[in-house]
Amino acid sequence: MSSSLTNQHILSVDQFNQSIIQDLFSLTEQMKLYKQNKQIRTVLNGYVLGNLFFEASTRSRMSFTSAFLYLGGQVNHTTGVTFSSISKGETLEDTINVIQSYCDVIVLRHSELGTAKKASQVSRVPVINAGDGIGEHPTQALLDLYTIFDEKKQLDNLTITMVGDLKHGRTVHSLARLLCLQKNIRFIFAAPQIVQMPEAIVSDIKSHGFQVELTDDFNAAISEADVIYSTRIQRERYENPSDYETFDGLFTLTKEKINHYCKPDVTVMHPLPRTNEIKLDVDALPGAAYFRQAANGLYVRMALFCSVLGKEING
Amino acid sequence: MSSSLTNQHILSVDQFNQSIIQDLFSLTEQMKLYKQNKQIRTVLNGYVLGNLFFEASTRSRMSFTSAFLYLGGQVNHTTGVTFSSISKGETLEDTINVIQSYCDVIVLRHSELGTAKKASQVSRVPVINAGDGIGEHPTQALLDLYTIFDEKKQLDNLTITMVGDLKHGRTVHSLARLLCLQKNIRFIFAAPQIVQMPEAIVSDIKSHGFQVELTDDFNAAISEADVIYSTRIQRERYENPSDYETFDGLFTLTKEKINHYCKPDVTVMHPLPRTNEIKLDVDALPGAAYFRQAANGLYVRMALFCSVLGKEING
Amino acid sequence: MSSSLTNQHILSVDQFNQSIIQDLFSLTEQMKLYKQNKQIRTVLNGYVLGNLFFEASTRSRMSFTSAFLYLGGQVNHTTGVTFSSISKGETLEDTINVIQSYCDVIVLRHSELGTAKKASQVSRVPVINAGDGIGEHPTQALLDLYTIFDEKKQLDNLTITMVGDLKHGRTVHSLARLLCLQKNIRFIFAAPQIVQMPEAIVSDIKSHGFQVELTDDFNAAISEADVIYSTRIQRERYENPSDYETFDGLFTLTKEKINHYCKPDVTVMHPLPRTNEIKLDVDALPGAAYFRQAANGLYVRMALFCSVLGKEING
Repeated sequence: MSSSLTNQHILSVDQFNQSIIQDLFSLTEQMKLYKQNKQIRTVLNGYVLGNLFFEASTRSRMSFTSAFLYLGGQVNHTTGVTFSSISKGETLEDTINVIQSYCDVIVLRHSELGTAKKASQVSRVPVINAGDGIGEHPTQALLDLYTIFDEKKQLDNLTITMVGDLKHGRTVHSLARLLCLQKNIRFIFAAPQIVQMPEAIVSDIKSHGFQVELTDDFNAAISEADVIYSTRIQRERYENPSDYETFDGLFTLTKEKINHYCKPDVTVMHPLPRTNEIKLDVDALPGAAYFRQAANGLYVRMALFCSVLGKEING
Repeated sequence: MSSSLTNQHILSVDQFNQSIIQDLFSLTEQMKLYKQNKQIRTVLNGYVLGNLFFEASTRSRMSFTSAFLYLGGQVNHTTGVTFSSISKGETLEDTINVIQSYCDVIVLRHSELGTAKKASQVSRVPVINAGDGIGEHPTQALLDLYTIFDEKKQLDNLTITMVGDLKHGRTVHSLARLLCLQKNIRFIFAAPQIVQMPEAIVSDIKSHGFQVELTDDFNAAISEADVIYSTRIQRERYENPSDYETFDGLFTLTKEKINHYCKPDVTVMHPLPRTNEIKLDVDALPGAAYFRQAANGLYVRMALFCSVLGKEING
Repeated sequence: MSSSLTNQHILSVDQFNQSIIQDLFSLTEQMKLYKQNKQIRTVLNGYVLGNLFFEASTRSRMSFTSAFLYLGGQVNHTTGVTFSSISKGETLEDTINVIQSYCDVIVLRHSELGTAKKASQVSRVPVINAGDGIGEHPTQALLDLYTIFDEKKQLDNLTITMVGDLKHGRTVHSLARLLCLQKNIRFIFAAPQIVQMPEAIVSDIKSHGFQVELTDDFNAAISEADVIYSTRIQRERYENPSDYETFDGLFTLTKEKINHYCKPDVTVMHPLPRTNEIKLDVDALPGAAYFRQAANGLYVRMALFCSVLGKEING
């Protein structure tokens, strides 16, 4: 399949449009079927992924790794602790210049904003941003969007309630921007004022003609939702710990709250890991989609690798 | 091959009976032949192992990895130091819930007792316990038993002398229980009183009708043995270091002691790593089986993966 | 292909002669073509590399790994931080004795001189020295020599200027010795006196009948060069930091210096990582070969694995 993503770096959700996303999600569906039917894919035989995690991230690293392996490729990975060349004072650009010769595509996770772009500027092989500090993590946004599609069987005409720390949450920022490519989305952002969605993103959404509501009334916010997207409220973000204490618990989803306040077919998502935001008793509810969401990361990344490497999938 | 282990979690030696073990060992023999003849196996093509070592263990991790690779499978592994999700406060259950979507079988090593069982309760893919603290390490017991079989060409009618720290040694406990499935085993446990075999295990063995002798006379104990199973005496287990000094050396196997006290065809085993328990001059003796024992770990684990994943082996 | 390297340990550049090197470089050329044409190699299907990095080295580890993977093999690796068996007091020999059963070839990096040899004495599978402290790193010397051949299309009749810390630089020592197998090489060693090439190596080169010049006049030294081989001047090597300050910068290659002093077709090499020895503006010059040099590491190691494992390459 020659895709418009072939040989492209994947740095930001801004690269995607409706047509790219439709192609990608249709490929994602295929991947899910292959995996579930235990069909063996060999499309990436002879390909090597350079899986560079300058910052540890078990889930993302293992998800990218398995996505590549299940397509018949091989993975050459490294993690922060073993990055000896960096500790010897090498620049990121030099590291990438060398490692691109050892692989066919690079996945890069780094704690510093802008690292993925820097890498892409020297790399002849495609670079996929797997999170660069407070920057983007575009494949997370793709898998989030795919999960909404997979759970609701539609991407338009939905009320999406995002809750938790919306100020620092890289995932909610990127997902909000991807949702702006859809039609008739109503956004509800429920957070303590101190960690509400940044004004720049709110303006951006409004400029696309969408309705945005900001609130700290958690129960009201979830009652309207087709999809609740919860993120961690990080205690360390509060200058005054007592502020945190005030909110803690108010923004926690429980089975009782969901049964009491939410639509019967509400979908609950979370990028994981969770701590206290979603109680264990929610897990058994049919709308608890966060583990399916994590599983979708595998399929979306399989589809992305095929697209970026320009590989045809033969049913 | 449809085995009674197909799709089973492997948590404890209590799951095994004579028939399971015979099937497994016959498969193990096949695996050894394949490996030694450098025949290429592809039976696990398209399969991914999630090799989760929350606690470092070079030998076990590499043994499981190569076992999977030699069958044509792929390995996605992680080790304690890079377990970022745990450090972010995620529960083991959540981690397993996510990672099971990225693989077909999980091998789990953890420092806490009961972890493997906990993981198995949420995992749809088989979980193999690769050691959970003072708990079990069932594949070690299997490879130990296989090594006895391989060295002696029989599992019945043997005198097995276990020496060293029998109190804390997870491997000797599990092996003793597996040996209770055999016929006419005489057990000699030679250890300083302070680290002798726990009474519960001794009773258990006796309830199976076997003869058990406890002693701290090392030389007498090894003189009766068909198999000597040595384990590390850990200095740190002694409240009073001078107790340790008293025993140190008394329980060390040397070529001289073996030639002087032991049966000519005695087999010497050790789970490794060894420190001072077996002197280097023992290595050249024909009965020094500990490196063959380590090699058997590969074949037993290959057999176990095939059984658990229900794969037919075509000669 | 049955090579004279088949089943040999690769410990030192002293093992190589002209005929071995010619065979190896001709195989290296083939490997480069395969890789560049994205041809899939399966020659190492069913083989496992034990990639043992007791000391971290991102570049070398990833280069060996990808070399093995691109030939269809599998890699079982471990790095210093996870070497639990060593931390439990196991000897290197015992570790190797066990791990050789889990793989078909071992690559070993260690901080201590002589480790590779020690490992080779107990290993039935070939051991490749990937650097042991101040000892050798023979595959680095091979890829350096191959790069000179690849850039200059000849190995004889060249002036090779080595600059930087020539005293502690393992790579320049090994490369100098390999160059002694060629004809009519003129060596210029440009370094502050305190880190000049050891007298033993200088004598050795002279005993082969080659001309050697030692200097601290950097600009003169590079003006004669067909090839400049630059290495890091390590600040920590100077007892008196002000000595370092005196030299710092004098031995730095810049585009301006190269354009002003050097032959138009000069080749610039560096084992990487670089810090201040070569300015970024050099990168764009046609003679800046250091990233191609790093890439050549992949092809040379692919050729070496085939030779050591005695594998035929079918075009």
